[in-house]
Amino acid sequence: MVKKIVQEGLEAVEKQLRDIVKSDVDVLQDAGLHIIRSGGKRLRPQLGILAYLAAGGQDVARVIPMSAAIEMVHTATLVHDDINDHSMTRRGQITVHARWGRTFALLAGDYLFTKVYELMAPYPSEYNVIMADATTKLVEGETLQAAAAKAGNMDRETYKTIISRKTASLFEAAARMGAMLADAGEEMIEALAIYAYNLGLTFQIVDDILDIVGDPDTLGKPVGTDIAQNRGVMATQNGGLAVQEAVAELEDDPIARMMANLRESGAIEIARMQAEETAVRARNALTTLPLSPARTEMENLIEMVLDRQN
Amino acid sequence: MVKKIVQEGLEAVEKQLRDIVKSDVDVLQDAGLHIIRSGGKRLRPQLGILAYLAAGGQDVARVIPMSAAIEMVHTATLVHDDINDHSMTRRGQITVHARWGRTFALLAGDYLFTKVYELMAPYPSEYNVIMADATTKLVEGETLQAAAAKAGNMDRETYKTIISRKTASLFEAAARMGAMLADAGEEMIEALAIYAYNLGLTFQIVDDILDIVGDPDTLGKPVGTDIAQNRGVMATQNGGLAVQEAVAELEDDPIARMMANLRESGAIEIARMQAEETAVRARNALTTLPLSPARTEMENLIEMVLDRQN
Repeated sequence: MVKKIVQEGLEAVEKQLRDIVKSDVDVLQDAGLHIIRSGGKRLRPQLGILAYLAAGGQDVARVIPMSAAIEMVHTATLVHDDINDHSMTRRGQITVHARWGRTFALLAGDYLFTKVYELMAPYPSEYNVIMADATTKLVEGETLQAAAAKAGNMDRETYKTIISRKTASLFEAAARMGAMLADAGEEMIEALAIYAYNLGLTFQIVDDILDIVGDPDTLGKPVGTDIAQNRGVMATQNGGLAVQEAVAELEDDPIARMMANLRESGAIEIARMQAEETAVRARNALTTLPLSPARTEMENLIEMVLDRQN
Repeated sequence: MVKKIVQEGLEAVEKQLRDIVKSDVDVLQDAGLHIIRSGGKRLRPQLGILAYLAAGGQDVARVIPMSAAIEMVHTATLVHDDINDHSMTRRGQITVHARWGRTFALLAGDYLFTKVYELMAPYPSEYNVIMADATTKLVEGETLQAAAAKAGNMDRETYKTIISRKTASLFEAAARMGAMLADAGEEMIEALAIYAYNLGLTFQIVDDILDIVGDPDTLGKPVGTDIAQNRGVMATQNGGLAVQEAVAELEDDPIARMMANLRESGAIEIARMQAEETAVRARNALTTLPLSPARTEMENLIEMVLDRQN
């Protein structure tokens, strides 16, 4: 039953995402629809909907624009990330900048950011404050990552700050606003926010591990992209530095060699342990919530994030 | 007296712009402060303040965050524009992308967009709807411009659509929200919105003329940049096409030659007439307002925009 409600909610989110990018400026609409239609896990809007239901919300329509806005922030940053990373494929599709060129990709990303704002505008101020804050943190996280990659200086502490801001903050915002829209009490809102924040950390660590050990066909994107950008494995001690040195040493396909080295170094096992640790924190946060099908779904989500292969 | 109030208001806007870009992520704060400190005419926040005063507003503090947000939208787009145009200087200063590189410039522009949102979040929904709409129009206008420049297809109608969206919409939003914050009636809000919209058109046409005939030292930026991007003179009949052909014909400093051609073609006189026409519309819109020092300032602003040399 709750699965069906979530599914219908996600379909409504999908429709809203497609409707909101409509424009008489063809390239913006085409590029917007291209990235939206290329799919994605839609984890963030799912969190908005589930938090709303777990907090006792009865009218899922209330969380749809917010959940769509959360996914749109993520989508906008993907378009800009792909410019900065020179990525040619994403989710098994050509990237916006590969297809439409850098200028239009930059503008398409900006356009999607304005659509976040349009989706959120009808909500009261406190929601817009949360969304603005999460979006700022996301951009800060991306910037810290680019700066650390450039400096070749990515220790564990820096890595944690980066994934907290670039990923966990938006997860947290989705659940927090979902709970608020259900008029949940302060304690329940915090529990759901802590759950989502830690789920975000777990998700990102697993994502970075998959960049090293994943199967490119299953992932729908090349592996080693993050490594090539000097990031991703940085949950490990001095991982970033090791990467740089490895690249400097090796001339023949350094990324493949380095990935092999990392697989053998034990770095992945350490990262995996950290993912398990943040997953425990997510699970613990849920224990204060009343039992409900939505809570069970949220528990299942932790396992899915931990076990995913793509 | 009103000049002093506006001046103090603009100083408050300036302070807010500088305060809001503070971040522990150095490059975002540094790049943000760099572009803000490089100045600019601050016409848009001035419009927000003047519309508020003309509509009888008594507490200028109410319009400061909104006016700062309006200027921040403009500032964010400048950072991204300079990436797309490969501009090295702006307002006599090095551009963000020339100094920090493309990746950080893209992120810094995104960061400034999130700060728009942060500044506006405390205002009620209707203001956020107006701001989101104006920001979307701006990005659409920029995109239409890039598309027309690429296609070498910039007729007068397209040019009008472009300047309406990329410039006039934000001018209009500033005045509209200023009037609303003063609790003005519908008629007064519309009059101020029409004034600002037409002032925006006038400003942009004059700006495009200055790109051709202006003195680079006075302007603080090289002239001919817009021409080189196949835009700017497009208020003239087939101006864009003429530009393309001219570039194709001339091998030795085509831009200088083309600018000379344009100066001699009568195109600038036609553009000038259009600027005078939109200025008349701006002036007429003000006639329905009660006489006030703020209204007089707004009238003066039209002349300043028409007569400016930089």
